[in-house]
Order: sequence, then C-alpha cells, then structure tokens
Amino acid sequence: MRKQLLICFLMAGLWSQAQDNALIKTQVRHTIDELVEFVAIPNDALNPSDINRNITWLSDKFSDRGFNTSVLPTDGLPLFFAALPMDSKKPTLLFYMHFDGQSVDPSKWDQPDPYKTVLKSRSGEQWQEHPFSDLDEDIPYDWRLYGRSTSDDKGPIVMFLNTIDLIRKTGQDLSFNVKIILDGEEEKSSAPLPAAVVQYRELLEADYLIISDGPVHVSGQPTIVYGCRGITSMSLTTYGPILPQHSGHYGNYAPNPGMQLSQILAGMKDSEGRVLIPGYYDGIELTTQEVDVLKAVPDDPEQINRALQIRTPEKVGAFYQEALQYPSLNVRGLSSGWVGPEARTIVPATATAELDLRLVPESDGARLKSLVRKHIESKGYRITETVPSAEMRASADRWVTVSEGSVTDAFRTSLNHPFGAHLKTLLTDTFSQPVVQIRIMGGTVPIAPFVNALEIPAFLLPLVNPDNNQHSPNENLKLGQIDYGIRTLQAILTTPLGE
Amino acid sequence: MRKQLLICFLMAGLWSQAQDNALIKTQVRHTIDELVEFVAIPNDALNPSDINRNITWLSDKFSDRGFNTSVLPTDGLPLFFAALPMDSKKPTLLFYMHFDGQSVDPSKWDQPDPYKTVLKSRSGEQWQEHPFSDLDEDIPYDWRLYGRSTSDDKGPIVMFLNTIDLIRKTGQDLSFNVKIILDGEEEKSSAPLPAAVVQYRELLEADYLIISDGPVHVSGQPTIVYGCRGITSMSLTTYGPILPQHSGHYGNYAPNPGMQLSQILAGMKDSEGRVLIPGYYDGIELTTQEVDVLKAVPDDPEQINRALQIRTPEKVGAFYQEALQYPSLNVRGLSSGWVGPEARTIVPATATAELDLRLVPESDGARLKSLVRKHIESKGYRITETVPSAEMRASADRWVTVSEGSVTDAFRTSLNHPFGAHLKTLLTDTFSQPVVQIRIMGGTVPIAPFVNALEIPAFLLPLVNPDNNQHSPNENLKLGQIDYGIRTLQAILTTPLGE
Repeated sequence: MRKQLLICFLMAGLWSQAQDNALIKTQVRHTIDELVEFVAIPNDALNPSDINRNITWLSDKFSDRGFNTSVLPTDGLPLFFAALPMDSKKPTLLFYMHFDGQSVDPSKWDQPDPYKTVLKSRSGEQWQEHPFSDLDEDIPYDWRLYGRSTSDDKGPIVMFLNTIDLIRKTGQDLSFNVKIILDGEEEKSSAPLPAAVVQYRELLEADYLIISDGPVHVSGQPTIVYGCRGITSMSLTTYGPILPQHSGHYGNYAPNPGMQLSQILAGMKDSEGRVLIPGYYDGIELTTQEVDVLKAVPDDPEQINRALQIRTPEKVGAFYQEALQYPSLNVRGLSSGWVGPEARTIVPATATAELDLRLVPESDGARLKSLVRKHIESKGYRITETVPSAEMRASADRWVTVSEGSVTDAFRTSLNHPFGAHLKTLLTDTFSQPVVQIRIMGGTVPIAPFVNALEIPAFLLPLVNPDNNQHSPNENLKLGQIDYGIRTLQAILTTPLGE
Repeated sequence: MRKQLLICFLMAGLWSQAQDNALIKTQVRHTIDELVEFVAIPNDALNPSDINRNITWLSDKFSDRGFNTSVLPTDGLPLFFAALPMDSKKPTLLFYMHFDGQSVDPSKWDQPDPYKTVLKSRSGEQWQEHPFSDLDEDIPYDWRLYGRSTSDDKGPIVMFLNTIDLIRKTGQDLSFNVKIILDGEEEKSSAPLPAAVVQYRELLEADYLIISDGPVHVSGQPTIVYGCRGITSMSLTTYGPILPQHSGHYGNYAPNPGMQLSQILAGMKDSEGRVLIPGYYDGIELTTQEVDVLKAVPDDPEQINRALQIRTPEKVGAFYQEALQYPSLNVRGLSSGWVGPEARTIVPATATAELDLRLVPESDGARLKSLVRKHIESKGYRITETVPSAEMRASADRWVTVSEGSVTDAFRTSLNHPFGAHLKTLLTDTFSQPVVQIRIMGGTVPIAPFVNALEIPAFLLPLVNPDNNQHSPNENLKLGQIDYGIRTLQAILTTPLGE
C-alpha cells in the first residue's frame, strides 16, 4: 500500500514535471519570437533615436504585463524603469539589465544584417541556417540565435518578461516586489548612472539588486557573481623635439619620447607582471575560506592558456581567480611615430601610452592614479595636464602629459551574505548541479552606484552562454540558455526567503 | 711709375672681376631656366617611367656638353653615367648626385604643382610670386625657386652642367678628368648601388669622389663634409594573448606585450640617452685635434635647442658635433593596441618598436644589431625571425620577433687628407670666408660603396641653402646658391692640385 502510494506520488510528480517542461518550452518559443522582434530595433547608444525606439518597445511590453513604467531623464540618455504594484509585506528585488548594444560592422558578420536575427544549427564545423518554422515541432537547445544583443543584454530582458508570463500561467505567487531598471548606454560606460541613482533613490529602493549581464561560467554551470572590478584609465604622453626630426641629424641629440615612455612604463611592473609601485596592492587580504571559494571555481587553466596561446600567465595571483582579486595596470595602447612599412627615419615628437586600471573594492581609483603619478615623478618627470607650452619646454626637461579617465567603482558583496546563500540553494535545487561562485569578476558592470549610494547588496546572475561573442561580430544566444534563464528567474521570483 | 702700374693692374683686375661676375650672372640665369625645365619632369623613384624620362633629359643635356653618356642597368632602376674624354696625364674626379626626388603631396604645397617651379621673393613674413621675366634685368640673390628637387638634388646637377658651359666660355682648362654618376633612387636608399659599384668599377675608377647633396652648414658658410653616418634598422615585436583580450577578464593574467616591449627598450639606454648595451661605442676615440675641428663648427646650440624646443639634449656627446661621432639607437616608432579616442579596454596581442641605428665607421651595422639582439636575450627573451607559431608559444614564454633592415655603411675620409686641404684652400680663396669642416654628418648618403669598394677618398660639397625644405612641401633653392654652386664647381674643376 505504501509502495503504491509512493509510485502514485512519483508518477504525479513526473506528470507535473512533464507539464512544467511543456509550459516552459512554449514560453521559450515565445521568448524567441519576442527577442527577434526586439533585436530588430537597432540599439547603438551612439544613436539616441535608436534608444528612444527601444524604450517605446519596452514600455509596451512591460505595460502589457501589468508593470507601471517610467522613462527617467538623466544627464545622458534616459533610463527605463518598471515595477509591479507593491505589497509592503514583501521584500523588494531590483533587477538591472541594459538594452543598448555595441556598434555593429555588418561586413564582419556572417549574416547581412546584425539586427535581423538568424537561427542556426551546427553540423560539424559549419553553422547552417534554418527558418524559424523549424522550431514548430521541437526546439533543439543547441541551436543558436545570431544577432546583436541576443545575449548582451536583450536576451535576459525578454527572458524576464516571459518568466512573468509563465508565473502567471502556472498560478504561482511572486515572493517579492519586483522592480527593474534598464540602462540605455551601458556599452558607453553609463556615465549618467551615478547621478541618476541618487536622483531616483526612492524609486529604486530595494532589498536586493540582481544584475543579469554577461555569461555564466565557461563550464556552463549555474553561476553567481558577488562583485565586479571597477575601471579607470590614464593616458601618458612624453615629448621629444617639437616636430618629428630627421634621425640622422638629431639621433643622439634630441631626446627620444619613445625611450622616455618605455623607461617610465618599464619600472611600473616586474618581469612577471606584478606592480612594483609602492602601495598599489595595499589593503588586499584573502582569508583561507575566500581562497577556498576561489579555488572551487572549475576553471581549466590549460584550456585558458591554450585559448590565449600563452605558456605562463602573469604572477599577480597564483591562479586565474586569485589574479582577479587585485587591481590591474594594463598597457592597452602605445603609439609613437610610425611602424611597419610606414616607418620613417625620424626622432618622433611624442609618444603616448594608454593605461587601464581595473579596480577592486580595496583599491580606490583616485588613489591608484595618484600612485602612478608619483611613480612618474619619481623617475624625474614633471606632470602637466595639458600639452606643455614652448615656455614650459624651455624651463624644464621631461614633461609628461597625464590625462585621467573617470572612475567606475568596483563592488563586492560578501560571500557570506544570506541572500547569496538563498540564491545558491535555489539554483542547486533547480538544476541539480554544483553552483559556481565568483567572488569578483574581472570585467566592469557600472552598477557600483547602486551598491555604494543605495547600499543594496548586489549579485550578478548571468543567464547566457559563455561563447556568445559578446561585443564582437556574430553575437549569439544558445536556445538552451533561454530555458535556463526562465527557470532561474522563475525560481528567484517565486521562492520565498528562508526556503 | 710703380704706383701707376699698380693702379692699372688693380683696374684690370677689377674689370676682369666685373666681367666674370657678368658671365656668372648670365650662367645663373641659364641655370634657372634649365632647372625649371628639369624639375618639370616628375622624378618619384616609386615610378620607374618618371626615372626613364629624367634619364632621357640627362642624356641630351650631357651629350650637348660633349660628355659620353651611358645608362647603367642595375638590379633596380638604372644609373646615369657621363664622362668627358679622358686625358691620362690628369687626375680624375668622380661626381655623385641624384636626380630622383621625394614623393609629393600637392595639397601640402603653397603652389598647385610641385613640378611646376614658382619664383618667389619675401616681403616681410609673406612670400610673393613673380613671373620669370622679373629676372631679365637683375637676379636678386635672395629670391627663391620653389619646386620638388630644386635643391635635392636637381639644382646641383644643373649647376654642374652650367659650370662646364662657363669654363668653356672663359677658355679655362679643366685640371681633372671629369666623370659623373647620377643615382635614380637615392630617396629609396639606393639599394642597387653596392652591387653596381662593383660591376662598373672600371668605369667609375677615379682619384677623388665629390658628392653634392644636402645643404651647406646652417651658418651659410662654405662647407666641406668628410663623411656621413650609415644606417640600419631593426623591428621588434612582442606578444601577449593571440588575439586582443578584454582587459577585465585578462588584465593581471595575459602577459602584456606593451609592458614587455617597454622593459626591453628601457634598459638599452640610460636616462640621458647614452646606450648601455656593452660594446656599442667600442673603437670610437677622438683626438684633441679632432675635437678641435668639431668645436670649430659654428653651431649655435641655443638656436638648435630653441628650434627643437628642447632644454637639454641627450648626453652622448658633450655638444652637437661630438654627438654625431657616435652611433645612435633611435626609437622611431611604437605601436600596440589603440590610443586616443580609439583606445579600447583590451590586453593587446602584440607591440612593435621600430629602431634605427645610425652608424659610424667604427660601428659595423651587423655588429651593433647583434649587440642589440644579445641585450634582448639577456632580458630573458627568445628571438625569432618570424611570427611565433602556436607550438613555439606553447613551448616557451617571451618571444620577440626581430627583423633587420639592410645596412648602409658609414664612411669618413681623414680630416688630414691632402685633397681636403686642397678643397679648403680653394673655397677660402674663392669666397674669402672661413670654411666649415664637418668630420661626419648625422644623415646618410648611400655612397659608402664607392669609398669601401673602390677605395676612393670622398668629400661632400653641399651647394644649396640650409633652409631648403628638403623632403618636405615647399622645397626651394635660393638663387644666390646657384652663384655659389657655379663658383665652387668652377674652382674645383679648374684649380690644379698643389695650387
């Protein structure tokens, strides 16, 4: 009798699982159609009219789902905000995503129009195009949608909308109040965001911030990211003769700006990539528990190194995840005179290095830049903000023009935060797979203002495939990730805290 | 009686001087007309048909003056050779000049066509154009001809032709057998010259070589140059990730090629421009007498530094002329990633430095390049000639691709050579001005093969103004330099050795 009951119970469970799967597959198909429609609206943040047309689409789609929507003016392009009616007894989740995309160069894509989504399956090394009607019978989860922002970041927005639909269809309760803020110039660094976050702080008030941007860990496992590095930049220019000079007439006489620049840069790091500037790594300490979390990330160093075609990585950290716990100092560009077939026999007039500095919470951007400036001065150079005048050049040697980019702060939520544990549990339960926990990711999402100004604990929950060609030609979204995204968002929205 | 005789003699001298001046002025005018005709034939060595049309013109003009002419095939463009009938009792002078010119960008000139010579006078800061008929009454020696190769180096060729005319008109005897070799790709580095000099060594046999190329000393005084530096080049490329990578994901992990390149370059020199690579300056010693000759050059360091807008020059030599006695090591170009508004948040895949090394006779180009290679290896890098393959990158870190340019040797004739003293005496007598002696000039004229293969003592006798904008838009020739050039060549050709 008990055995029969158990079988009955199991069968009911299987049946309900099958019903759920069918419902989700229908929602995946609807997500595909809606995403194709959304991608068709170009979204280059360099073109404000693009952004406005996307906002119109978003207003319609969120209103249809019962959201109250607002367009929030900023110093730059407007933000889009939507919220479901509030219930004061529930905690509030704020989602952040962005609907702008990187500029496209159609000549580099394997399809005529990056805004006209193409469906493809892989056969061997080739990708083969399909009509969307091929999805009518079944949705093969290893097929992909190709188009700008399919993954970064329109896909997650449309998954979010369709998760709301699914929750309605299954009659589930939302365990949270739900707000969503959508950025229209994330790919342009979201310059207006810090001020806007302060201006609209009441509207944005929430207990937890969830950011869905970027891909899951390369292993494909469910992933929670607890923080991301910030960024700032510096540009250094050194000076030789006022105009390029004949290297015969003035080689050995006119100071060489490329050699000066090399001598400034060379001392910034040791030969294994560690910054030598005193104080650069101050304040960073890793506990044994933290190192254990970093080590638990299923990175495959051989695979990473093979992909980069490097034999030995830099030694800032003992392994990849550890390296990301430190600020970087990266020479992203060098230029002086001409190289290659255009090289000329000259002493160049100037040499320029572009640096970017990825920040961690312990490393204030302004502080690191002032350390770099001190290093430059310690080498006997004088710093100016502008191009030195003839008078300045006559009064002193060794000028360096330093210009500084703005600072986007890092953020990092504690690995011990209870909402992190909650997310980890629900992802484990939903997918029966180990969850990858990333203490801080290397790249920058400009949402530190939420964390710092609003003091909302923030978590990145990536939904898309790691090989999505984000920022590149042939950006794509694996259909299986839509299933993953909907299940993840459904679990988050419907699982009460403490369960 | 003696007093009357003396007056008579002086008057006769003055009359003959006045007659000479008139004859020379007529010849200057003819030189101007012939130079305008010659400049009108474009002479970009990148365009072989240009060079052939120039050779046709030269063949006509030299034949008209009784020269036997030959077109000498080489591995590249042909050389033009001409000689007057030989007299075995006389010593032989070989002249070297070139008739090709730098490429032109007409949009950067103040005249529509750089091959259509324009006559200009200065009034205040402005240059005013004149019809050539303005020269019919008088030739103002501070007016200028503007056009490509007016100075570099067609002007001296036409001065040479007209000096032969003048000598005929005055009934003077030539004190030398006269040969002239004209290069058609000097501005392209005369790559075929070394082999051609060996191939045609009997034809080119001579006692002395005179090169007329480049300007007189900036003081405007008569100038003899005893040598010029050679040149070679190296290109160094370092490697980071195989493709540019996101600086967030891989900053602190993927090796940075710009930092590697800076660290390689930085150690090559001290902060005052002296090469630190052991052996680089080996063999260079200056006697007190030589330093005295260098110091006697009327350079104005304040003027040089003001023109370059530098406060302190490099310290290879104690002063400008001394600096030129040493080989240089010049970073003429740097490139990695992107700079300025195009800077991207990447770890670049490669970084490249272009070096040029100006050579002196003590500094063999191959030896200096091997010292630079040793320096690179001493920093822990591996040198390859090609782009390292995936296998090479997997087997070792720190590859540097080094490619080497060809070597154009330096040459330097002894300051004590009797023919130098002869030239100095005749210039002093002709112009009643102190003569500037340059032991070695900084730039390179590719005639070392004559000196090294044919063992002919060589002297540069520049004829044109120092502010001629050689290699630049608005190249020009001051009319007074034509007078200077004709008088100089007349004195050289008609003054027997030992007078």
